[in-house]
Amino acid sequence: MRIILVGYGVVGKGVSTILASRYTEKCRDFGFNPKIVAIADIDGAVINHRGIKPEKLEALKKVRPVSSDPEIGYPNMSALDVIEEVEAEVVVEVTPVNIKTGEPAMSHVTKAFKTGKHVVTTNKGPLALAMPALTELAEYNNVYLRFSGTVGGGTPMLEFAKRCLAGDRILGIRGILNGTTNYILSEMSQNRISFQEALATAQKLGYAEREPSMDIDGFDTACKVVILANWIMNRKITLKDLNIKGIRDISLQELDEASKRGNTVKLIGSIDGNTPTVKQMEIPKNNPLCVSGVLNAVTFSTEFAGEQTLVGRGAGGVETASAVLRDLLDIRHKLANRY
Amino acid sequence: MRIILVGYGVVGKGVSTILASRYTEKCRDFGFNPKIVAIADIDGAVINHRGIKPEKLEALKKVRPVSSDPEIGYPNMSALDVIEEVEAEVVVEVTPVNIKTGEPAMSHVTKAFKTGKHVVTTNKGPLALAMPALTELAEYNNVYLRFSGTVGGGTPMLEFAKRCLAGDRILGIRGILNGTTNYILSEMSQNRISFQEALATAQKLGYAEREPSMDIDGFDTACKVVILANWIMNRKITLKDLNIKGIRDISLQELDEASKRGNTVKLIGSIDGNTPTVKQMEIPKNNPLCVSGVLNAVTFSTEFAGEQTLVGRGAGGVETASAVLRDLLDIRHKLANRY
Repeated sequence: MRIILVGYGVVGKGVSTILASRYTEKCRDFGFNPKIVAIADIDGAVINHRGIKPEKLEALKKVRPVSSDPEIGYPNMSALDVIEEVEAEVVVEVTPVNIKTGEPAMSHVTKAFKTGKHVVTTNKGPLALAMPALTELAEYNNVYLRFSGTVGGGTPMLEFAKRCLAGDRILGIRGILNGTTNYILSEMSQNRISFQEALATAQKLGYAEREPSMDIDGFDTACKVVILANWIMNRKITLKDLNIKGIRDISLQELDEASKRGNTVKLIGSIDGNTPTVKQMEIPKNNPLCVSGVLNAVTFSTEFAGEQTLVGRGAGGVETASAVLRDLLDIRHKLANRY
Repeated sequence: MRIILVGYGVVGKGVSTILASRYTEKCRDFGFNPKIVAIADIDGAVINHRGIKPEKLEALKKVRPVSSDPEIGYPNMSALDVIEEVEAEVVVEVTPVNIKTGEPAMSHVTKAFKTGKHVVTTNKGPLALAMPALTELAEYNNVYLRFSGTVGGGTPMLEFAKRCLAGDRILGIRGILNGTTNYILSEMSQNRISFQEALATAQKLGYAEREPSMDIDGFDTACKVVILANWIMNRKITLKDLNIKGIRDISLQELDEASKRGNTVKLIGSIDGNTPTVKQMEIPKNNPLCVSGVLNAVTFSTEFAGEQTLVGRGAGGVETASAVLRDLLDIRHKLANRY
């Protein structure tokens, strides 16, 4: 399986590390032989049509920009040209998220489809804006689109619902889907500090961005709700179909009052029969969904098996890269059964 | 898919209910057409080679013993004879658990294998005593053995680890795998009552048996550890390979001391590099594994994706029956890909 890696930040490097390190072992375990034939980022690309060797992948991590590598570097070659011109089966798209335009990921994904390549992405942008259209386009081109890493980081929330709950009916989904806001709310209630103080701590620790709107205004959670709704609940929606309210205005007093009722306030994305929403909700402290710190958790309500809650770290470079590996294995498996 | 249902208690009736109720819908969703052709319990059997109709399945629930049904009853016909003589693809084995001999389930399962039938069971007994041998016997006879309902009830703990964590490596498993003991420990610490008082409450509410040894001495948890170790960690072990200590001697003082350290005492089954164990352990109160009441929870520690915790109800007739349905669908799916 020849792979074009587009995006070379924390997740991209994590993918490169995992594929390099487990190269031999995975071959043995799954008849799976992944080769990165190109890495493209904003400055250019590196290309080796036979597959970049594990040692070279390790060495490239220290080359900045990666396209400046004297042996296999192609400075200024665009990712779109790489996707078009380099022969490969899969494009792994891990560029930064943009929920206004979805770019550059949107163009990378559609270019991959049109040139007959499967796509694994961790980028919520294109999916939040156009998931129904993108899944149709993939089907039309007879390729797979996989995106485990977009929800729950390394925690396989999408797979769990899709693969482990077959035969049951999922009636609703509620989740803490953003670690940053969960950290802020946990800090506020544990240390009795204001929202602004907790946000500042989160920024200092690298949990929150300097421009934190994506997290605290609920958009990141909303993107994940869109993906869950489409993939699990078969709802053809995009970001504009949601009611979204973040936690920017939350006061310590609200948390204290919830606490008196035995509850904690969390930013919850929820899908049931009505309009999918993102908003703060009170959750009983002894509910399994009520996890603290940067953890994510999602509860699936099912017809027969009751409520099932999955908890894990929702972010992290290596964790999210492990989701990419799962997706690659899934595509490998699907292809093996196709032919 | 023709099914022989062996055992007609809470889970058996749940299986019958689910297959009757979702009959039409499942056909449509999965090309899956389950028909119960026989039900056998200790008093005899009912048999209809064309499949017992949904309405009849509902009506049979009120017939005691089921074999006294005037139309399709076979009083005193043994389950072994039914398995031998009735044509079917799958035996669903849901008789009571016995961890000394594994019987009668052990004989039912092996008879099914020898007559070329797949087996879905919720019975921990045969697996705890002889899982490595049973999986070999199934392979030898070219049939499938599935047992989702043995661990976690309706919560798909086995499937989660097997299907959702592919590409990662599971380094260890720790779990609260028995709802009865978790209820007792939760009651003790929340209401500050003794073990004996909490046990009495659990018995009154039907959470604990009159003879509670299976739960409180850790054997039920141990059976589940054996199954997890074999299925997920590829360890060829049986019940005798475990260190097992229950919670019969636990004092309120121990719980209080743990609480001062921010912890709660739980009965934990664990598998890592060493001898698998069942024993009481202190778990931090804010750890996702620390669930209360009758809930079960299991944490998988993985190489790349960190710790992943799955929480759900670990028992219940309908919940466990939903696991049987999942297993039937899995076998259906495997057969479809085989031919």
